[in-house]
Amino acid sequence: MPHLPPFFSKVDELQGKFIERLSEAVAIPSISSEDARRPDVVKMGEWLAEQIRALGGEVELRQLGKQPGHEHLDLPPVLLGRYGSDPKKKTVLVYGHYDVQPAQTSDGWATDPFKLSIDDKDRMFGRGSTDDKGPVLGWLNAIEAHQKAGVDIPVNLLMCFEGMEENGSEGLDELIEAEAKSFFKDADVVCISDNYWLGTEKPCLTYGVRGCNYYSVEISGPGQDLHSGVYGGVTHEPMTDLVRIMNSLVDPDGKILIQGIDDLVAPLTDEEAALYPPIAFTMDDLHQSLGNQVSIYNDKNDALKHKMRYPSLSLHGIEGAFYTPGAKTVIPAKVIGKFSIRTVPNMEIDDVTKLVQKHVEQEFAKLKSKNNMKFNIVHVGKWWVEDPNHPNYTGAAKAVERVFGVKPDMTREGGSIPVTLTFQAQLQKNVLLLPMGSSTDAAHSINEKLDKKNYIEGTKLLGAYLHYVAGELS
Amino acid sequence: MPHLPPFFSKVDELQGKFIERLSEAVAIPSISSEDARRPDVVKMGEWLAEQIRALGGEVELRQLGKQPGHEHLDLPPVLLGRYGSDPKKKTVLVYGHYDVQPAQTSDGWATDPFKLSIDDKDRMFGRGSTDDKGPVLGWLNAIEAHQKAGVDIPVNLLMCFEGMEENGSEGLDELIEAEAKSFFKDADVVCISDNYWLGTEKPCLTYGVRGCNYYSVEISGPGQDLHSGVYGGVTHEPMTDLVRIMNSLVDPDGKILIQGIDDLVAPLTDEEAALYPPIAFTMDDLHQSLGNQVSIYNDKNDALKHKMRYPSLSLHGIEGAFYTPGAKTVIPAKVIGKFSIRTVPNMEIDDVTKLVQKHVEQEFAKLKSKNNMKFNIVHVGKWWVEDPNHPNYTGAAKAVERVFGVKPDMTREGGSIPVTLTFQAQLQKNVLLLPMGSSTDAAHSINEKLDKKNYIEGTKLLGAYLHYVAGELS
Repeated sequence: MPHLPPFFSKVDELQGKFIERLSEAVAIPSISSEDARRPDVVKMGEWLAEQIRALGGEVELRQLGKQPGHEHLDLPPVLLGRYGSDPKKKTVLVYGHYDVQPAQTSDGWATDPFKLSIDDKDRMFGRGSTDDKGPVLGWLNAIEAHQKAGVDIPVNLLMCFEGMEENGSEGLDELIEAEAKSFFKDADVVCISDNYWLGTEKPCLTYGVRGCNYYSVEISGPGQDLHSGVYGGVTHEPMTDLVRIMNSLVDPDGKILIQGIDDLVAPLTDEEAALYPPIAFTMDDLHQSLGNQVSIYNDKNDALKHKMRYPSLSLHGIEGAFYTPGAKTVIPAKVIGKFSIRTVPNMEIDDVTKLVQKHVEQEFAKLKSKNNMKFNIVHVGKWWVEDPNHPNYTGAAKAVERVFGVKPDMTREGGSIPVTLTFQAQLQKNVLLLPMGSSTDAAHSINEKLDKKNYIEGTKLLGAYLHYVAGELS
Repeated sequence: MPHLPPFFSKVDELQGKFIERLSEAVAIPSISSEDARRPDVVKMGEWLAEQIRALGGEVELRQLGKQPGHEHLDLPPVLLGRYGSDPKKKTVLVYGHYDVQPAQTSDGWATDPFKLSIDDKDRMFGRGSTDDKGPVLGWLNAIEAHQKAGVDIPVNLLMCFEGMEENGSEGLDELIEAEAKSFFKDADVVCISDNYWLGTEKPCLTYGVRGCNYYSVEISGPGQDLHSGVYGGVTHEPMTDLVRIMNSLVDPDGKILIQGIDDLVAPLTDEEAALYPPIAFTMDDLHQSLGNQVSIYNDKNDALKHKMRYPSLSLHGIEGAFYTPGAKTVIPAKVIGKFSIRTVPNMEIDDVTKLVQKHVEQEFAKLKSKNNMKFNIVHVGKWWVEDPNHPNYTGAAKAVERVFGVKPDMTREGGSIPVTLTFQAQLQKNVLLLPMGSSTDAAHSINEKLDKKNYIEGTKLLGAYLHYVAGELS
């Protein structure tokens, strides 16, 4: 890869400009979940389009119409971009988002969240710095450095940058479906840079994400909330019934107690088991993330497997019961317990739901309560797993090794990233998650940051990936 | 009792005036729990003092100083009144309160809560009508009707009317203790009219109230709330642990599962058992109160005993978990489960606490969780049971029979009324609960009302009680 050294040098040379580009982007408070900020989201999309056009790319800001359920608001446009259209080259589709989570200084930020602030450790603080403006601009920076270094980009690039990722990605699935055989038809592989390294030192490639089946159980009985002094002891109490049902779902060691769930989980192969020991992750890392030594497992590999490739069940809370500080002697009339199961191959959504519903109904029947029980599916989302031996991954792995001098960790994520699944399903192409930021970036939290090193070396990584994946695909 | 017919006639004759008196009282929004309404509470106390003085009574509005924890607010005064001081007469101490629960039309009231509105069924709607302005004014009405009928009141009356009952009765216990051997020293019996008939047709005398031991169990572990997708399956989850502990406390049939609790409960004697069958109460009444057929027991006597003389345990809710509508994939870092036990003779507060704490600690130890558990006593209040064969009760029973033509139900209440206990403990005198309102009055709720019949016949009852108790005591 003789073209890479001049590209890398140019990235280093241009880093001041790239940071200035990020600084301009962070200054636009493109919060998609706040009505009043919608014009800023649109402004951010337009700014991004202008940047790409200035680099010679073609851009369409695709309007998606009104926001469902909020018809006074237009959805922000999806940016559909193209850089290069050489039929002899392979085509890489990259995805990112230009909207951000809410942020106010009063939430506890040490600096103005919409002013990029660099501290003496070269940490660049600002809302959207790592999620996901930094990675999106990484692609633009890579294009610019190639141009200025006089190095040809060996693939065509398709870009899909949305402005509603932090607010349910409204309209995106429909767009991808509609454009699968049109705008997206040339894509050979998909690359998404919108997640994080497992730690702070070693890059990773992410080849899987757990799904999420979210359920609720509603128990009702009394016609209204009752005084526990007056009616305690004579009425079937919905809370008592609900706690019994919630208690039956999972044990304190995280074991799911619903019959049949374990049988759905794909057995661990030797090949997959071999992926965990090399991962740069320690029990100390886990305890630091948890904020305390409350891990169920004492062995790093066990912990990783339960984070990535085994299901889990969490009890989130109860709606309708007393929840404020202090004391209230109430018998709540209707309570709704919320829980979800993180799913993994080969747990099909409906198979899981069937087992859960059967279990809940059996447990409720055991109570012989006169209350009523209603089982609800709140939302479901499938797991996603990709073949980590595909050229999309082997190319990315080589790029990591070239830029960082280490083999990447091969990871799966705990949380769901629905667009991954949509691209895989609609385009039938291999999808890679190639993160730029590290585990300490505090996306969605106060003091979100991106380390300068991650941004600059990350720009090199994205550029190098295009070269290696072109090589692997040819 | 030859003096009663002219008194009764005078009450009937003056009913327009008595309703006007209640109307004036309801118009003063004496909400003790709202800072902004504190001047109205004071105004209500002064209005009441003026009414008593106009009838020839002596009144002191005793100032109690600043409200603890709310030092910008003066506590409303306690009205200490006296009517008659004949050393040859017995002395009856009556208690009531002149403050009310919050109320706003927007809560769902059909009428202005602070304008007494009488409908075509002679129901008098208004905040405080039944709780407790109507009963308090019943004593004043009884004095006035005696005066105008030219009938001597055969006892001396001491009055203790407070303005903080709906806000923790701040300062009252200390006042009663301080005045036990002073202002209250002549009291021979105590009568409190601040509860309700069991149904709508038959008056009752209430000789017992369950106590309340309120506890919380706090489970904490992770340093902050965690994403269930990322950390579900690798961390001990506080919710899972807490649900286990809550599940171990009570079964769906209301049976308390804490070892040793049942042994503390006084056995049912034949004499006490005989009190339940005559009580005017049906399973239909219970189902109507519950708003649904969710009673644990199918037999009226079983239901009454579990409402009145057996303990119960209610799970009230969880602080710190997800509680709003919708879905949140959170692993709460710290959750606090709230529950309380309604206590009955002979469950001593500390004995119960010891058993509960031991149980909770044992159950938590069984979980082998790395989380932390903290057991807390939120508040405790003792049960109260009085001798229903005391002259205070036999006198009141005769008064009920005279006014209503039926023997009263002898009941115990589910909810606690702390002042009852204080009077009993400090004055060492028999305390009677003699309610005026009925079970349908909706105290503390929207559309609170007092039936005109309950108000007028109730005034007769309070007056007749003074005659019969004088007879029984002499």
